[in-house]
Amino acid sequence: MKFSFQNPTQLIFGAGTLAELGEAVHVYGKKALLVTGGGSVRRNGTLERAVASLNAAGVSVVECSGVEPNPRLSSVVRGAEIARSEGCDVVVALGGGSTMDAAKVMAAAVFYEGDPWNMMVHVQNRVLPTKALPIVTVPTLAATGSEMNGGAVITDEKTTVKSFVTAKCLYPHAAIVDPELTMSVPPDQTAFGICDLITHVTESYFNGVDGTPLQDRFAEGVILTAMEWGPIAVADGNDLEARAQVQWASVVALNGWVQVGTAAPYPVHMIEHSLSAHHDIAHGAGLAVVNPAWMRAAAQARPARFAQFAHRVFGLSLKHPEDAEAAREGINRFEAFLRSIGCPTRLSEVGIGDELLQRYAQDTLLVAHDKHGRLPGRPSMSGEDIISALRSAL
Amino acid sequence: MKFSFQNPTQLIFGAGTLAELGEAVHVYGKKALLVTGGGSVRRNGTLERAVASLNAAGVSVVECSGVEPNPRLSSVVRGAEIARSEGCDVVVALGGGSTMDAAKVMAAAVFYEGDPWNMMVHVQNRVLPTKALPIVTVPTLAATGSEMNGGAVITDEKTTVKSFVTAKCLYPHAAIVDPELTMSVPPDQTAFGICDLITHVTESYFNGVDGTPLQDRFAEGVILTAMEWGPIAVADGNDLEARAQVQWASVVALNGWVQVGTAAPYPVHMIEHSLSAHHDIAHGAGLAVVNPAWMRAAAQARPARFAQFAHRVFGLSLKHPEDAEAAREGINRFEAFLRSIGCPTRLSEVGIGDELLQRYAQDTLLVAHDKHGRLPGRPSMSGEDIISALRSAL
Repeated sequence: MKFSFQNPTQLIFGAGTLAELGEAVHVYGKKALLVTGGGSVRRNGTLERAVASLNAAGVSVVECSGVEPNPRLSSVVRGAEIARSEGCDVVVALGGGSTMDAAKVMAAAVFYEGDPWNMMVHVQNRVLPTKALPIVTVPTLAATGSEMNGGAVITDEKTTVKSFVTAKCLYPHAAIVDPELTMSVPPDQTAFGICDLITHVTESYFNGVDGTPLQDRFAEGVILTAMEWGPIAVADGNDLEARAQVQWASVVALNGWVQVGTAAPYPVHMIEHSLSAHHDIAHGAGLAVVNPAWMRAAAQARPARFAQFAHRVFGLSLKHPEDAEAAREGINRFEAFLRSIGCPTRLSEVGIGDELLQRYAQDTLLVAHDKHGRLPGRPSMSGEDIISALRSAL
Repeated sequence: MKFSFQNPTQLIFGAGTLAELGEAVHVYGKKALLVTGGGSVRRNGTLERAVASLNAAGVSVVECSGVEPNPRLSSVVRGAEIARSEGCDVVVALGGGSTMDAAKVMAAAVFYEGDPWNMMVHVQNRVLPTKALPIVTVPTLAATGSEMNGGAVITDEKTTVKSFVTAKCLYPHAAIVDPELTMSVPPDQTAFGICDLITHVTESYFNGVDGTPLQDRFAEGVILTAMEWGPIAVADGNDLEARAQVQWASVVALNGWVQVGTAAPYPVHMIEHSLSAHHDIAHGAGLAVVNPAWMRAAAQARPARFAQFAHRVFGLSLKHPEDAEAAREGINRFEAFLRSIGCPTRLSEVGIGDELLQRYAQDTLLVAHDKHGRLPGRPSMSGEDIISALRSAL
């Protein structure tokens, strides 16, 4: 283990903390670009409360609404233009992962020379952003963990390529995480969020370097907590305690505390991004399809790792450390859990057939590939391997 | 759960990272107050390497050596005077928890008006420090976690009171955590460090608020990792992998990732401080005596919590969630673990008799008490309760 870690975001967590938004933001600016998504925050009154808190603290608001699920590059450009022309000095994201990701890149694009797409990881001679307006995030969904990390996923709608950027300047200055805001999220989206957060830690658990026993325990802790409280939140969206535990797990699942030192690539996310770039499916639903299929492929190469997962997460007994049967059963149990909370686990359930398998593999490898042209992970995968895994989930 | 959390420290972890010290420090200053302890870093060459790295990065060094185990207020005052008179603009701590704690308070005392003792938590009308010189920590012992948090423990040698301060300005800007530096730590001090780090998480595990299942899992993860790798580090101090895992566990055990949202008091630490303020014993050795004794007292009030500990950490089966017998057996196993790595678990083993029991209780309650004059914890304890717990460990 050799690494450098820093996460400077101030996290303000708890029911009712939306009321602290203005106080948190006015430290950083007096005129906020308030970024929102499709309109649910307007309908359910959250937007109004956020604006009231901001105004009460002396922060004026310029709205940038309509950020899409799987947010588009054009929305980022639009938001940055508004921020520049209006002279905004802080960016507030109020919404789900898409809204937060778009807002983060907007905040950097304000200072960025040229096309913000050139920030993205897959671009040759990419130029990382080094400066951004201060960002304050207010998630309304427990899922992506974007509220407390320096990453963002953006889709170029012209090329249907979904890529990502991670940079120091994209860490929010503050995150207001108020589980009350997630109570109106419907059961299916709640379940997709749970799948998303679990997948964040299975990525590093299965793809990280060897010799990170503490991070393994942390990942298992996130999964066990999500599996304990997730079904309660899905069954009763008004259970504030369950909402809080799920949202807390989603924050920790991708704020770096679990991934630190693992140097893990995210093959399942990379494959899923190629699906949701082409099809209008929820990211978490796509992950529920891809993750078990990927696990089955990967378990053949590393049964011991999946046996440990089966043992520690599902309490299965192991005949020996490399017990492949237990490993498979652990994956089955995981898939059954996803189904039990209402996630799809087959491509056909999200309306995807076998027509574009080749294209998904190509797009995946365009965004993430090692020097041999393979998808990084344990094991690394060729285009054929990706197609084969997806085909197993048709 | 309702909380605010921020830990801005940049953590640079891994074997060989001492060489990065100069590069990390020169961002913050050009003239470092280099704080060290009793001389081991001079004898084993670590000091020379640190100074070389600092000088190579253009940072000049003013030494402040001789910080005691259980660091004294007078040392803090002395260090702050050196920093002021020499015009130091950054403080580097190279040593164990005592050195780091003293260095942190020195860095704040440079700007503090009046006696730095007035920062301490127990002082009526205390005045928290709000500004400090930038601090960079380089731990040479895996134990206190002081390298990546905003706390410090100081002893007023005139009154033999050991107190503490936690403040935002005391967070180190950077922590260079190089497990190679811990390889010369002898087995007994290694074991005391392991006990210290485990106690950091048992404090929040047993004394935190209800409803923190994820933090529970994280605490268990720290304990399990320390119990897996600690004995290896004690048995072979040159096992770099074991040193790294133990040190990583010690960082995480008190950087807030486990305690976040638990609002936990630290009764075991409070009681121990009253011992090591009077007697020249290692803090971790004192904790090894106090913690099991405290646990046995606390388990009577909250068997379910200790049964969970017994089940998840030691794999004991529970007849029911409040299984008091399993709870007791879990504590026995924990005490046996401490003994197995060479920790004392009786007061007599560290040369302490029953003469001053009343005084330890008084001192403990002087530093930490609720509005009823009791030691905060679950359950809270009277002076008599403290005496009774200590008497059980004579």
